[in-house]
Amino acid sequence: MKTAVETVPSYVLDAWWMPDAGAPATDARDASTGEVLARVSAEGLDLAAVVEHARTVGQEELGRLTMHGRALKLRELAGYLNGRREELYAVSAQTGATRGDSMVDIDGGIGVLFTFSSKGRRELPNSNVVVEGPVEPLSKDGSFIGEHIYTRIPGADVQVNAFNFPVWGMLEKFAPAFLAGVPTIVKPATPGMHLAAAAVRAMVDSGILPPGSLQLVAGSARDLLDQLDYRDMVSFTGSAATAALLRAHPNVSGGGVRFTAETDSLNAAILGPDAMPGTPEFEAFIRSVVTEMTVKAGQKCTAIRRAIVPDGLRGAVIDAVGARINERVVVGDPRTEGVTMGALASLEQLADVRAAVEAMLAAGGELAHGTLAAPGVPDAAGPGSGVGRGAFMSPVLLDWPDAEAAAVHTLEAFGPVCGVLGFSTHDGGASEAVRLAALGAGSLVATVCSNDPDFVREVVTGIAARHGRVLVLNREDARTSTGHGSPVPHLVHGGPGRAGGGEELGGIRSVKHHMQRTAIQGSPNMLTAVTGVWHEGADRRIAGEAEFGGVAGEVHPFRKSLAELRIGDAFASGLRPVSLEDITAFAESTGDTFYAHTDPVAAAKNPFFPGIVAHGYLLVSWAAGLFVEPAPGPVLANYGLEKLRFLTPVAAGDSIRVTLTAKEISPRVTDDYGEVRWDTVINNQNGDVVASYDVLTLVEKEDTLYKSRGRRATVPRPP
Amino acid sequence: MKTAVETVPSYVLDAWWMPDAGAPATDARDASTGEVLARVSAEGLDLAAVVEHARTVGQEELGRLTMHGRALKLRELAGYLNGRREELYAVSAQTGATRGDSMVDIDGGIGVLFTFSSKGRRELPNSNVVVEGPVEPLSKDGSFIGEHIYTRIPGADVQVNAFNFPVWGMLEKFAPAFLAGVPTIVKPATPGMHLAAAAVRAMVDSGILPPGSLQLVAGSARDLLDQLDYRDMVSFTGSAATAALLRAHPNVSGGGVRFTAETDSLNAAILGPDAMPGTPEFEAFIRSVVTEMTVKAGQKCTAIRRAIVPDGLRGAVIDAVGARINERVVVGDPRTEGVTMGALASLEQLADVRAAVEAMLAAGGELAHGTLAAPGVPDAAGPGSGVGRGAFMSPVLLDWPDAEAAAVHTLEAFGPVCGVLGFSTHDGGASEAVRLAALGAGSLVATVCSNDPDFVREVVTGIAARHGRVLVLNREDARTSTGHGSPVPHLVHGGPGRAGGGEELGGIRSVKHHMQRTAIQGSPNMLTAVTGVWHEGADRRIAGEAEFGGVAGEVHPFRKSLAELRIGDAFASGLRPVSLEDITAFAESTGDTFYAHTDPVAAAKNPFFPGIVAHGYLLVSWAAGLFVEPAPGPVLANYGLEKLRFLTPVAAGDSIRVTLTAKEISPRVTDDYGEVRWDTVINNQNGDVVASYDVLTLVEKEDTLYKSRGRRATVPRPP
Repeated sequence: MKTAVETVPSYVLDAWWMPDAGAPATDARDASTGEVLARVSAEGLDLAAVVEHARTVGQEELGRLTMHGRALKLRELAGYLNGRREELYAVSAQTGATRGDSMVDIDGGIGVLFTFSSKGRRELPNSNVVVEGPVEPLSKDGSFIGEHIYTRIPGADVQVNAFNFPVWGMLEKFAPAFLAGVPTIVKPATPGMHLAAAAVRAMVDSGILPPGSLQLVAGSARDLLDQLDYRDMVSFTGSAATAALLRAHPNVSGGGVRFTAETDSLNAAILGPDAMPGTPEFEAFIRSVVTEMTVKAGQKCTAIRRAIVPDGLRGAVIDAVGARINERVVVGDPRTEGVTMGALASLEQLADVRAAVEAMLAAGGELAHGTLAAPGVPDAAGPGSGVGRGAFMSPVLLDWPDAEAAAVHTLEAFGPVCGVLGFSTHDGGASEAVRLAALGAGSLVATVCSNDPDFVREVVTGIAARHGRVLVLNREDARTSTGHGSPVPHLVHGGPGRAGGGEELGGIRSVKHHMQRTAIQGSPNMLTAVTGVWHEGADRRIAGEAEFGGVAGEVHPFRKSLAELRIGDAFASGLRPVSLEDITAFAESTGDTFYAHTDPVAAAKNPFFPGIVAHGYLLVSWAAGLFVEPAPGPVLANYGLEKLRFLTPVAAGDSIRVTLTAKEISPRVTDDYGEVRWDTVINNQNGDVVASYDVLTLVEKEDTLYKSRGRRATVPRPP
Repeated sequence: MKTAVETVPSYVLDAWWMPDAGAPATDARDASTGEVLARVSAEGLDLAAVVEHARTVGQEELGRLTMHGRALKLRELAGYLNGRREELYAVSAQTGATRGDSMVDIDGGIGVLFTFSSKGRRELPNSNVVVEGPVEPLSKDGSFIGEHIYTRIPGADVQVNAFNFPVWGMLEKFAPAFLAGVPTIVKPATPGMHLAAAAVRAMVDSGILPPGSLQLVAGSARDLLDQLDYRDMVSFTGSAATAALLRAHPNVSGGGVRFTAETDSLNAAILGPDAMPGTPEFEAFIRSVVTEMTVKAGQKCTAIRRAIVPDGLRGAVIDAVGARINERVVVGDPRTEGVTMGALASLEQLADVRAAVEAMLAAGGELAHGTLAAPGVPDAAGPGSGVGRGAFMSPVLLDWPDAEAAAVHTLEAFGPVCGVLGFSTHDGGASEAVRLAALGAGSLVATVCSNDPDFVREVVTGIAARHGRVLVLNREDARTSTGHGSPVPHLVHGGPGRAGGGEELGGIRSVKHHMQRTAIQGSPNMLTAVTGVWHEGADRRIAGEAEFGGVAGEVHPFRKSLAELRIGDAFASGLRPVSLEDITAFAESTGDTFYAHTDPVAAAKNPFFPGIVAHGYLLVSWAAGLFVEPAPGPVLANYGLEKLRFLTPVAAGDSIRVTLTAKEISPRVTDDYGEVRWDTVINNQNGDVVASYDVLTLVEKEDTLYKSRGRRATVPRPP
């Protein structure tokens, strides 16, 4: 008899917390041996204080950092956790996970931190106000404009997680919340709780996280929702039934709590009629189905539950899946050599899955591969397992002679179970495949496996609105694809309808789900003050030509380091006349002899030009000549151009001038230089706008010439 | 006694429908005279058939058009409705609306159609698949990539509207749904139902709308939600209590129906400590408060309910508001000359507002301006009204000596009522103003009235997360501002918490709320097939230099009209060597003598350059020379450049070449030309990418040279 079973502690108010010794608790067991590993209980925990701590200390401490500052912390944390993977693997094995499963969970979770760190620094400003979308002119004279900003929500993100990926499931929600500046309160599921707690232990040990930014409730969430209001959000992963209950909570239905859910769904994999046995697509399809049945013993909300294949290929698919399972799959204790598929999370899960399979068999499914012992009795006491106490199950493939049978589109066996359905190909098959996939009533993901672009287009656009993600598998990506069942941090995860209607990940999209989008309206000066980005029409300090606004004593902004430069610092050049000779010479030297620059008769017939006009490239090249400061200075390079539009043609005899204004200044947190975006306008002698664009430069932080020099640096790529 | 009162008909299944003569009905009355205008009833209407009609006929008919096709129809519809404004004004006056109120409602609604038509054609592709965001590389070799698309939801948008703006409230929801391709089922409120029905009558008469795209339920929504599932959405405007009820409906909480709500809120207007009496800001503030109290008799979900002002200015604000009301406001039947404020929507509304004011007086509010007769008895039988039967009320201003009194932050009088609260300015005032505004627990809009950029920045970033919109009012935009209470179609409307948590308008954002965002993953060829946009790495047909992929017989894509051009059509140039003389000559002719192009010693110290390098502008100018087709042809102009990045420096002795690929082809629906976006890559002799960018051109639809010529055309502006 075991006596030294410990209770999993909660981490709240920046300290570890344990319930009273006598508090009622649930046992967490080893999935393979049935051994009791730990007790789980949050009985007596003051959840109101937990929420208040997040809203006060957590908000304040996270708010001391900018987006980039928090992004850097995510990278540090990822590096730290990398060093503690082995101890997490050991705990993970107790949940029934193979080494491969554990890597999906643990390395996958750490990978999310790295991705968000890098995207945060590349795609978000180094501040706490994110401008979204273009400026909208709201008055003719430009004195009243509008745009949108994102700022973080003022409360907590309560993350209720499922049992299947205790680490990834936590980090994929924590990362965007943290980046947004929103404190996390995580409530993992009881099976796997000890693994989630081990990961939180490591995160706390790292010393990297600001106070209040992460709290762990290691037990029932009880009345947690009662504590929340419109400032907070709930990010739920789990069953559709629980999601519905939470959504009907008065604080969600009427109290303004933001609620997002990701529930498991009856995901489809669709095989194209072109993907006959022997093709790379057929092979990739079979491999994908078996992988999704067996990874994590099929306990994945993204697993393939419905293989939708051309009617004539049903037999071939069943045979090939069965053969691959026989060849590859060894069920047992994941700590045992040679085992490729572990246990389900618990005997309760096993019983649920078996019951679902029985129901499907009763509803028209036929057992096409695998065995099914009586519910509750393990049928595969795999190598190394405690006989009768491990939650083991063989992969089960069901054949559905009636593809419309309701059961296959509504029942889910959350384990190594998949059904095969046939569709008629008499009209090409695409519309039939779309129709069957739609019977799932909303899914997280579907795979379309075909090398026929027309079939792929028709099916993908036909099913997209019912899916959060669609993977197209063909010979070109079969080896490089990250797989049907694997959400990637760059792309959204979640789906409509049965899949819960939520959206996670998707890069910065998920950060914005933790922020409020607000329209702001005002004058250019006021929107400049609010956003820290210079807006056209706002005040500036202009150096250069007095005739065009230049003020004596103002320094050319290219002479200013990031420490000195302010948005609104500007330079105005004088006019430079353009002659026909200039245009001709430019045509000759560049080779750009387009008729609009060389042939007066043809040029005059062009609907956009009055006759021969200067090259757009001549104009921007000359503009650079007009605004450049030739001698070495803090501006290191012009690394790009954005949003260039040629608006008024320039003919021989016209003159041009340029005005350049510092619009956005982004010092890098890890380099001694940063990016400056310059609003650039070329005008002609009449003041008409000839061209407008953004010039992108790299500028040193401090005015120490050559400070950054002598080593190589890299130019930012476009987003 | 009246006998000829008609029932407002519903418009369903593309036909007008009336209930049985004996069906129970509600009376719609003239707000000023109490006269019964119409009966309202949808008793016996088969709502399941209405929803099914939208999902089948409506979806199919709208799906025949592209985004641009539907956008054009919105413009036609707006033009048609413009011609029928007068008859709508007459009906509007019966709701208690003044001519000004009616213009906000009717002209404002038509304006939304125009804006969405124009934005749809400028900001959306001419197809039914909208690509969102950048491509994400998911494998090192580029064979597996991901991105996001939007496709319309496969059901109906059920629009439940409030009584206050029957036309605008309908069209601001209809326009984005229609543009997305989603059929509308509109359920207006009973007061104002006859006006909404008159507008629908005009829309149907126009003959512009496809079958099934618009249905009107002129009566109780009864079991409408019972008919909806995950394919559908509900767009609700009304009370928070009703929104909470609908959100708790099983089809919303558990059935996947998308639900968005806009409920009225306790919007604040904050006066800055700098905005002393006599300043333009003080004057603008007073004007704004009085406008928001009296337009539509204060029955606006965006109206100012809380004037939050420096403690010391409370008296001055109360006096100035009172004086302006006395000077400007004449309450009465809006059809009577000289009336500036009409009736509330009904006697029931009047009773509600009075009761709310009584409750506020009991909770610490003090009557600072206006009179309040006993509840239920009209106090202002204005000129022309049926005495005792018009829902008239004078504007009421309340003073709140205790700014923290719960009532002012929780109770709403949905009429011409506003409270004044003071904040302490001992620490500058911003944080105190933010704290008071936050007590509203989520609002649609706030005004910040100040000319102090620091105060504005602190307050706006402090309150943004609790607001859907913030207006900054100062001397610069006081005359051009569209006003506190007016949502504009370009910017989002809606707010968190008490404001309902929803989001409407915001230009294309609201179109996307009617679509599902789906991540798609696959090879470049397959993502090209799905989106109709060429992806890097996908197949192409290359003309030009054989050494770099050119195939004999392929025509230069600049020689192809839109009718002939296909995405993936490409051109590859040969190599052109760059010499020091070229660089020097370019520096001299353009004036761009930056040291990196002219001074070998200084250039070598720059961390990005190996020594003297060619100008980026030289490279793109030469690239144009390398890819140009000089003789007249279907390509009319290069109107811009996007996403230019210089990635590898080019030194003397290097050579460059360019490859150009048709990436996106967008024929205009109204012109005989369209836009073509060309993926452009400059490589050096080693194959390194020197620069990458998009070249934007205008190309004729048909290969009829000079067809478009001889008339002026306009270049598209950047979004």
